[in-house]
Amino acid sequence: MREAYRDQLGQLADQLADMCSMVGEAMELATRALLEADLALAEQVIGDDAKVDDARAQTEEAAYALLALQAPVATDLRTVLAVIHAAESLERMGDLALHVAKAARRRHPKPVLPEAVRPYFSEMGRVASKMAGEAEQVIRTQDVALARALDDADDEMDDLHQHLFTVLMDREWPHGVAAAVDVTLLGRFYERFADHAVSVANRVVFVVTGKMPNYSTDEF
Amino acid sequence: MREAYRDQLGQLADQLADMCSMVGEAMELATRALLEADLALAEQVIGDDAKVDDARAQTEEAAYALLALQAPVATDLRTVLAVIHAAESLERMGDLALHVAKAARRRHPKPVLPEAVRPYFSEMGRVASKMAGEAEQVIRTQDVALARALDDADDEMDDLHQHLFTVLMDREWPHGVAAAVDVTLLGRFYERFADHAVSVANRVVFVVTGKMPNYSTDEF
Repeated sequence: MREAYRDQLGQLADQLADMCSMVGEAMELATRALLEADLALAEQVIGDDAKVDDARAQTEEAAYALLALQAPVATDLRTVLAVIHAAESLERMGDLALHVAKAARRRHPKPVLPEAVRPYFSEMGRVASKMAGEAEQVIRTQDVALARALDDADDEMDDLHQHLFTVLMDREWPHGVAAAVDVTLLGRFYERFADHAVSVANRVVFVVTGKMPNYSTDEF
Repeated sequence: MREAYRDQLGQLADQLADMCSMVGEAMELATRALLEADLALAEQVIGDDAKVDDARAQTEEAAYALLALQAPVATDLRTVLAVIHAAESLERMGDLALHVAKAARRRHPKPVLPEAVRPYFSEMGRVASKMAGEAEQVIRTQDVALARALDDADDEMDDLHQHLFTVLMDREWPHGVAAAVDVTLLGRFYERFADHAVSVANRVVFVVTGKMPNYSTDEF
């Protein structure tokens, strides 16, 4: 039974890691759709979100089955519960990529972003995808040091987000209120994506070390 | 053992219901702080958020203990997992009330909201607190019909949110971009609060009926 349990737990971790890869790609493509006003790419991200939802449902079902059949305790129990929480965060990351893609679709063929803020979103997209990749590596390697790298990337995201607000709040912002509203919401989607990536990594750290690192919550 | 289990499950439900009451009151007070630029009230909500976080931690620990000691299966297992998910949503609802209070504090003594959108926030605050109260009743009574009432309230919230955007997007919006950014984020906080309230109620429906109602996700 212990060995079967280890196998099942390993499969759960693989499913989570695969979800990281899915949402990282979704955010990368959504960002390209946003920057290039690429409707086909936006539609692809929108259509593929159901796969993330399915992966989450499957992961959760597998975790439930493991709880019901193996009744793990102590660290093993916390591991399974961490998987359930992480899967929820990952589904939410998929939703946030979906929101970015929907914004690109809503304004098509017009670009959503004024030229002045494009570099911020290009960077935020890069950092977001990088963080999903790092979360994937944290899950696959259980490398606690790598989880700390995610905190640095999250700081990078927060800086970008802060700077974006400075641009928005400039009295000279010439792009109108509608663009400001879009940029505000989109900025928040990237920032929340990063928060969830940190949360996923922190769950792994908790399982490995028994301690939750200083829980990074959204600091609006 | 079954009786002890029932008692513990009842206690978990009580803790969740108490959390509903806490976050409902937090959103009510945060809304008043926002509308009346009341710094003391804002500080109160900000200070009290730690109580919501503690309640979530306690609820989650109690749920973990129940899983470890009783190893429930089938519906009982799903009930405990639903509690864990609902507690997470409720903590998030507390965070959203906190964000509203922080916005009121950040702009104090200036009001955050232009006069034109005050009625929307007054209504959104009322609906949000009502929904937290309804979620509390759903948990206490396990009344599935009442859970459906939350969907109606959520529609009401979505309508308010849509109308708010119409006001924002009006070419004649005279209040500047900074106010528009605040209003955009604040509107989203109320809308997400409502989504989470629906999610909490749906978890109860799932436990009672074995079926997840059409899962209301955020439809940005």
